[in-house]
Amino acid sequence: MIVLALDPHRGVGDLGSWLRDVVESTRDLVYGYKVGLPLLLAGGPAAYRAVREYARDNLLIADLKLSDIGDIMSLSIDYLSDLGVDAVIAHSFVGYRDALDKLSTKCLEKGLKLILLVSMSHRGSEEYIDRHLGEFIGLVEKTGAWGVVAPATRPNVIRFVRERLGQKIKIFSPGVGAQGAGPGSAICSGADYEIVGRYVVGSGSPRERLLEFIELQREAVERCMK
Amino acid sequence: MIVLALDPHRGVGDLGSWLRDVVESTRDLVYGYKVGLPLLLAGGPAAYRAVREYARDNLLIADLKLSDIGDIMSLSIDYLSDLGVDAVIAHSFVGYRDALDKLSTKCLEKGLKLILLVSMSHRGSEEYIDRHLGEFIGLVEKTGAWGVVAPATRPNVIRFVRERLGQKIKIFSPGVGAQGAGPGSAICSGADYEIVGRYVVGSGSPRERLLEFIELQREAVERCMK
Repeated sequence: MIVLALDPHRGVGDLGSWLRDVVESTRDLVYGYKVGLPLLLAGGPAAYRAVREYARDNLLIADLKLSDIGDIMSLSIDYLSDLGVDAVIAHSFVGYRDALDKLSTKCLEKGLKLILLVSMSHRGSEEYIDRHLGEFIGLVEKTGAWGVVAPATRPNVIRFVRERLGQKIKIFSPGVGAQGAGPGSAICSGADYEIVGRYVVGSGSPRERLLEFIELQREAVERCMK
Repeated sequence: MIVLALDPHRGVGDLGSWLRDVVESTRDLVYGYKVGLPLLLAGGPAAYRAVREYARDNLLIADLKLSDIGDIMSLSIDYLSDLGVDAVIAHSFVGYRDALDKLSTKCLEKGLKLILLVSMSHRGSEEYIDRHLGEFIGLVEKTGAWGVVAPATRPNVIRFVRERLGQKIKIFSPGVGAQGAGPGSAICSGADYEIVGRYVVGSGSPRERLLEFIELQREAVERCMK
């Protein structure tokens, strides 16, 4: 029920060792890994390939917040497919025509899962993004997306997404840990997976921190299931 | 008056040679280069460094459509700054609080120019983005951004941005060439720079194609200035 975000904070030292240590010490405990722009800027495609290699049995999600015109997103999917990525996260905001239409077709062709962002965990999400939540849910249906991202910091949004999209859609929730939502809180609202990053990988002992997180998540879920 | 977009289409062959050939044969003719996600996925940070090295006197713009929470965008700026990038393009729709506020502060700290996307060249831009154009222009003022991206395919948007933000703001216009707008058309509407990519770099002889483009741009601008 956990996806671990691998964002290399400044001062991780040797990037290759950091990646290997974090992934090898956590891969039996998490469903997947989320790799983003900081890792790509720090280590290039080789860093994504390394995660793929260390985590053969986990879902590998590229969270590059895809939000370009369709042709550029499709070109990026070609490269991401070469790197062995399983799923990609894109912004709903970029729209359907000549954007998400082409992206969803390309993902289908390459066998990649598409995950659409319908709301974000930071306060600025309320300024524009959240005003289109209903429309974005329509986009999820239209593109045949496999999953959505909806933040742990907004339980009502998670409930709304689950209610509107049913049990088949996968809901990923960031905002747990360093950003303030308690472990398990998003699951209790209807999410499938909680995305945690800094709270675990920014600590000196990721496995211990992750085990603590899992215990807290389990307790919270048991409480809310009663 | 031209920024050349370096998106490596599939089949460029050896990426390093392609980059070197394109940049060295065009750098005296363009104001800047725009590097995006496909190049980063294909060649990693080394590809950005190579462009920096071949084009010491040109503006280097990282067009990664930044649209994440503030902390992640700031972390990306740290890495982009190390690579010698001069300017970055971010989406306005990610909002101000805990997003563009942190990004603009970080850009200022690192001496990077911030360019905000207020409208895009594809049809899907009308679905959500363009509905917030007035608000996004307010964000440009609030963040103290150095420039904006507004598409050549929507001359009215360029005119509106210029009218609202005055002469100080730099306007970059994609959508020229392969996406249909004629060379010079965005300049005639008030843009400072036209962004061209495939039309030039997708051809067998980028320099010749660019010289043709410049001539067409010059003619169009002379006509509209009359």
